[in-house]
Amino acid sequence: MNVDAAKSLLPDGLRDLLPPEAEHEAWAVAALVGRFRQEGYQRVDPPLVEFEDGLLAGPGAGTAPHTFRLMDPVSQRMMGLRADITVQVARIAVSRLTRQPRPLRLCYAGPTLRVRGTQLRPERQVTQAGCEIIGSRSAAADAEAIALAANALDTIGVPDLSVDIALPTLAPRLVDGLGLAAADRVAARDALDRRDAAAVRALGGEAARLLGAILDASGRAGPALAALQAIDGLPDDGRAEIARLADVLPRLAEAAPGLAVTVDAVERRGFEYQTGLSFTLFAKGVRGELGRGGRYLAGAENGGAGEPATGFTLYMDSVMRGARAATAEPRCFLPAELAAEAGPRLRAAGWVTLAGLDPVGDARGEARRLKCTHFIDPAVGAGSDPLPVD
Amino acid sequence: MNVDAAKSLLPDGLRDLLPPEAEHEAWAVAALVGRFRQEGYQRVDPPLVEFEDGLLAGPGAGTAPHTFRLMDPVSQRMMGLRADITVQVARIAVSRLTRQPRPLRLCYAGPTLRVRGTQLRPERQVTQAGCEIIGSRSAAADAEAIALAANALDTIGVPDLSVDIALPTLAPRLVDGLGLAAADRVAARDALDRRDAAAVRALGGEAARLLGAILDASGRAGPALAALQAIDGLPDDGRAEIARLADVLPRLAEAAPGLAVTVDAVERRGFEYQTGLSFTLFAKGVRGELGRGGRYLAGAENGGAGEPATGFTLYMDSVMRGARAATAEPRCFLPAELAAEAGPRLRAAGWVTLAGLDPVGDARGEARRLKCTHFIDPAVGAGSDPLPVD
Repeated sequence: MNVDAAKSLLPDGLRDLLPPEAEHEAWAVAALVGRFRQEGYQRVDPPLVEFEDGLLAGPGAGTAPHTFRLMDPVSQRMMGLRADITVQVARIAVSRLTRQPRPLRLCYAGPTLRVRGTQLRPERQVTQAGCEIIGSRSAAADAEAIALAANALDTIGVPDLSVDIALPTLAPRLVDGLGLAAADRVAARDALDRRDAAAVRALGGEAARLLGAILDASGRAGPALAALQAIDGLPDDGRAEIARLADVLPRLAEAAPGLAVTVDAVERRGFEYQTGLSFTLFAKGVRGELGRGGRYLAGAENGGAGEPATGFTLYMDSVMRGARAATAEPRCFLPAELAAEAGPRLRAAGWVTLAGLDPVGDARGEARRLKCTHFIDPAVGAGSDPLPVD
Repeated sequence: MNVDAAKSLLPDGLRDLLPPEAEHEAWAVAALVGRFRQEGYQRVDPPLVEFEDGLLAGPGAGTAPHTFRLMDPVSQRMMGLRADITVQVARIAVSRLTRQPRPLRLCYAGPTLRVRGTQLRPERQVTQAGCEIIGSRSAAADAEAIALAANALDTIGVPDLSVDIALPTLAPRLVDGLGLAAADRVAARDALDRRDAAAVRALGGEAARLLGAILDASGRAGPALAALQAIDGLPDDGRAEIARLADVLPRLAEAAPGLAVTVDAVERRGFEYQTGLSFTLFAKGVRGELGRGGRYLAGAENGGAGEPATGFTLYMDSVMRGARAATAEPRCFLPAELAAEAGPRLRAAGWVTLAGLDPVGDARGEARRLKCTHFIDPAVGAGSDPLPVD
């Protein structure tokens, strides 16, 4: 088969993970979930498809344009192929696990699909791994989510981690509280989203002063917090958001001491369904964000108030660009005539064994052909130690 | 939310795996794949969806009626949501890994979906885990596939395993070689599929004698093989199939000594795309088959001869009904005021820790409420040993 034919085998944005990449990703996912479980997060595994009205409700609405739809021939209702798992975990928390004590800590890992990739992230199938902590308003929950994400990434060797903390509801609250005319309100939000300091100044008066001040208060966490705290005349809900940030930062510094922390008080992109302190994770030299998370209300789409929750999702496509490299694994070739005898002993000692299926004359040559690092020399016998091929 | 509403949340045949079931299945899948990797099977991970003409070609044709279809908005071509992974792994072997040395050993684990469940197996999403060995005609490959499936299931505690070996091409070859009229040929195949001894006898002559003999030669492997070997007048290709069985059985007995082996020389159901020795795995007291596998030609649908291959697939819904029960995990509650100090020490010592988020007066009571088995008593201090809750 020629290269063009091979390339055309899969749709754009979908690919086969081959050896050793597939194992490397499986190792990383298992290590991340293992770290989540160490802090009491219990695994759940929702299905790949479910009714679209559940999958795309509330915080899931943001994934609606990215979600493949399927007709269910059994119920004759439309189903969606999940583009995100958080909304499924929240559904589980507020339905099947409603009687479990709060805070409820849940984790997950699994594939997600979306209709189209983007230029920055062409992959249409991405494995997501993450945690949700449901039923607590505490700043300790915010700090735990960020620290756990960072510490789990550290476990798999992702270097030089940083987190950018956003307060996506702060700017909209300030804008709404300023008593601006509708057109000015749109202009103010738009200026903040574009980080257009001149346009913010052009709003004039109290709007220019307050919004300019939060626009300026971005960067390293310490100075950014100090600048936010120094702003006079903030409404109560705005002050509460800054107090929350002040409560979270020292907890985070204690729980994830190596993590570089920045604050961006006006960032809202991707946080449209977040209800408070949110964050994005990066690693130096790794393209794309590794994950994101933040506050939301679990189950609010069912008509009630919802449960306060926070959590995070890691995107394994980006994460694997930063994870520690896979180490080549020693593999021992067993000539066919002694494979049955030598195999169990060597595997029990931790070896990966490849059994010869048919007799061959040159065990070392066959081992090399099969890309093994070691072989058992039949002249020495089934009980002998593996010899290096080279 | 009432029970009816909760039940209606998911489509029929799709379900959430909750704690501790989700972790238990993840553990079992990881243990199975870990066992596959011990014998040199390297993991591949094909995408959940691909173009239907690739997914449903050759051996994939059997899954066509069960496969969800999706329109790819990028290519405007139809894609299928995989109902089986074997065909994907075969595709990888004969395209992307065509230059890798043979025999090529590959393994995989991942979810599959099908349009409808059956009465015996209502699940529409099933995780499959399996192995393929591509590029060998050797009887050692047949024996290795069966033994590895059984030994891997043994690793996770599935008791009293048995395998039923089928020779799905034997009876059709005999029927075709008998020189019967077209109508009699159909009648003969049909009689064998229904195991209708009277109808086989009614064929008369050589057909009745030969086909009656292979119909009788089913049951425990030793006697069944002897009965098959005792049949006179078999054509060469029929004798070759029985010789292959005779070659595989002692190898299998050596590699998987505890496995009960039966032979069913006429079984063809589910083996429509198999080209030789095939098998189905069962465990005493476990409803449904745990897995199946057998010989096929990888890539024959591309127009060439294809590569000789064998392998197996395990169905995790059935497998989990037989796997060792999950053991309850000790969990230690850490009161909020000492969680940051005590957590890293206890986790490094292997504990699962649950941090209190807000201060509570009664650490033991809070530990019990959170279903922890242990707690750290703040009166004793952050450096103290976990105390049992009860």
